[in-house]
Amino acid sequence: MRVLGIDPGLTRCGVGVVDGSVGRPLTMVDVGVIRTSASLPVAERLVTIERGLDAWIEEHRPDAVAVERVFARSDSSTIMGTAQASGIALVVAARRGLPIAMHTPSEVKAAVSGNGRADKAQVGAMVVRILRLSEPPKPADAADALALAITHLWRGAAQSRIEAAMANAKAAQKIVRTR
Amino acid sequence: MRVLGIDPGLTRCGVGVVDGSVGRPLTMVDVGVIRTSASLPVAERLVTIERGLDAWIEEHRPDAVAVERVFARSDSSTIMGTAQASGIALVVAARRGLPIAMHTPSEVKAAVSGNGRADKAQVGAMVVRILRLSEPPKPADAADALALAITHLWRGAAQSRIEAAMANAKAAQKIVRTR
Repeated sequence: MRVLGIDPGLTRCGVGVVDGSVGRPLTMVDVGVIRTSASLPVAERLVTIERGLDAWIEEHRPDAVAVERVFARSDSSTIMGTAQASGIALVVAARRGLPIAMHTPSEVKAAVSGNGRADKAQVGAMVVRILRLSEPPKPADAADALALAITHLWRGAAQSRIEAAMANAKAAQKIVRTR
Repeated sequence: MRVLGIDPGLTRCGVGVVDGSVGRPLTMVDVGVIRTSASLPVAERLVTIERGLDAWIEEHRPDAVAVERVFARSDSSTIMGTAQASGIALVVAARRGLPIAMHTPSEVKAAVSGNGRADKAQVGAMVVRILRLSEPPKPADAADALALAITHLWRGAAQSRIEAAMANAKAAQKIVRTR
């Protein structure tokens, strides 16, 4: 199974592709960052991100996409751009019918390092170890995208099963109601 | 000049098309709301909004698009969805090369009612008067989209000139620097 991890951002959108199969170590396929200039209008920056993500999906044909879940509670001035970029990531994946999962930053930290409050350096070091890289991918957004893909490969299967069960339960409820 | 106003939202995305030409009253061309169900995954809801906005642009061929500017300071739980929907609106317009303007809620209120703190009812009443409608468009998101289009028609020309001048000044600076 191949997962594209996306760490959404307007200035730097991290992208990382990881392959995983049962009983074998995970392997990194590709990693990078889609950059857009702050001097451009937001709409153009979002189109650049859309095209960039489309190209990554075209090239690597992932089976699923993992996107970082963004929260409003952040008081960062960049939060609106991050939310907009995450919307683009979701649409690019959904248009192709790719399964999408969202993981929170603490879920990702907990999955790769065992500590939901791990710092950037710790996450980077664990990504290096898990994927047997020679050095942490830079910038941090690229490492975070790989961490998202790893999290998805490790948690995704279980989560998909839970969601499928919940969807079935909902559908069953609806059938009961409409009778 | 024909303007499509978009009041972004995940549950209700307001859309309104207004025609304006010098020396003539503004006229409403169409108004509506793109709705998505909260029971669907966010990604599917965003794709529905994308397709809906594309259809509105296809049908009405606006010369410009006015989108409400979203702020992080809002403590509403829906702010992330609103930001994501606004990102989609920006991308849909930018992909077609349409000029885009963003207006804040208080700019819109000030433009249509003369009061930046006007309430929903006052904005609705002014939209009715300006466009000579028989009653306020419902829901409020639809009226807000028309108010955005009106604001753009009234403010847009001046703003475009300012932005063009600033872009020219920036370009001139760059030329000076690279010499």
